[in-house]
Amino acid sequence: MTGYIENKDAVLTRLRKIEGQVRGLQRMVDSETYCIDVMTQVSAATRALESVALTLLEDHLSHCVADAIAEGGGAADAKVKEASDAIARLVRS
Amino acid sequence: MTGYIENKDAVLTRLRKIEGQVRGLQRMVDSETYCIDVMTQVSAATRALESVALTLLEDHLSHCVADAIAEGGGAADAKVKEASDAIARLVRS
Amino acid sequence: MTGYIENKDAVLTRLRKIEGQVRGLQRMVDSETYCIDVMTQVSAATRALESVALTLLEDHLSHCVADAIAEGGGAADAKVKEASDAIARLVRS
Amino acid sequence: MTGYIENKDAVLTRLRKIEGQVRGLQRMVDSETYCIDVMTQVSAATRALESVALTLLEDHLSHCVADAIAEGGGAADAKVKEASDAIARLVRS
Repeated sequence: MTGYIENKDAVLTRLRKIEGQVRGLQRMVDSETYCIDVMTQVSAATRALESVALTLLEDHLSHCVADAIAEGGGAADAKVKEASDAIARLVRS
Repeated sequence: MTGYIENKDAVLTRLRKIEGQVRGLQRMVDSETYCIDVMTQVSAATRALESVALTLLEDHLSHCVADAIAEGGGAADAKVKEASDAIARLVRS
Repeated sequence: MTGYIENKDAVLTRLRKIEGQVRGLQRMVDSETYCIDVMTQVSAATRALESVALTLLEDHLSHCVADAIAEGGGAADAKVKEASDAIARLVRS
Repeated sequence: MTGYIENKDAVLTRLRKIEGQVRGLQRMVDSETYCIDVMTQVSAATRALESVALTLLEDHLSHCVADAIAEGGGAADAKVKEASDAIARLVRS
């Protein structure tokens, strides 16, 4: 399963940073930081998560989907449909 | 260039409907319809546009990107990168 | 009903421009413009619509909601709830 | 500063759950779970964060903004503008 994610360590580092942002949000709410400042941090964490999703998606298109297409056969269409559904969930979230 | 968009007529019909929604919005604003009702219609038109973008994207992945991958050579990576950038613009809009 | 929308003419001008963008999208699809370029224009129209919604919302908070709060009585809570629901539709669209 | 957030404990509970989701994402990436399944979980965490932001916003409109309007004076306009800017960041994230 080599090549799963091109930069697995980089993605993990970004997820750990987002975990830290979410813990920071708990401290902000617990200490009753001004709502607008909390909301600004929520928007930053949301954007960081979307950015991770976009990285995963690009890797997925470059590897899993591209491999299915290169192999030919019926799997390619299903892979493209599955990726498109995941993109739709991302756009609508 | 046949097969450009699988259902070109269906996409055109949806765009004409969205054009009608945007004209409807002008009438609502002009006649001073209650703001919340106008905003609800703006959200509906926005979702309809996003839905068109997702259809175009799925067609694009199934045809242009898949063809570039099937042909092999260096074009495939560039096509995947270009599609990923378009997806990012869509997610962030 | 004065003051309905602070800049009704400016909002109408923006909606007419969006209508033009949607007609432009029909021409692009009809003439089989490259998918990625069509998607870029869809993202631009989506952002323009969201921007109109945000303008309407700010006017609504400044006038309708503020008036309900200033008058006191039970109407204020309902107005805030209604605005919050409209914001949620916008965020999720 | 009582009444800061109507349900501070409920918001903290939701943020702790999101922290758990982000830790779960790290495990999924580390064990090389299929990309599409990881992306689905990223979308779920994103929606949960947006939902927290919408709760904070509704509280903010009901309390901080409503209080500024009820007090009268020049502060109300600034509060509405500030809330509108936060909503715009949320819509565009």
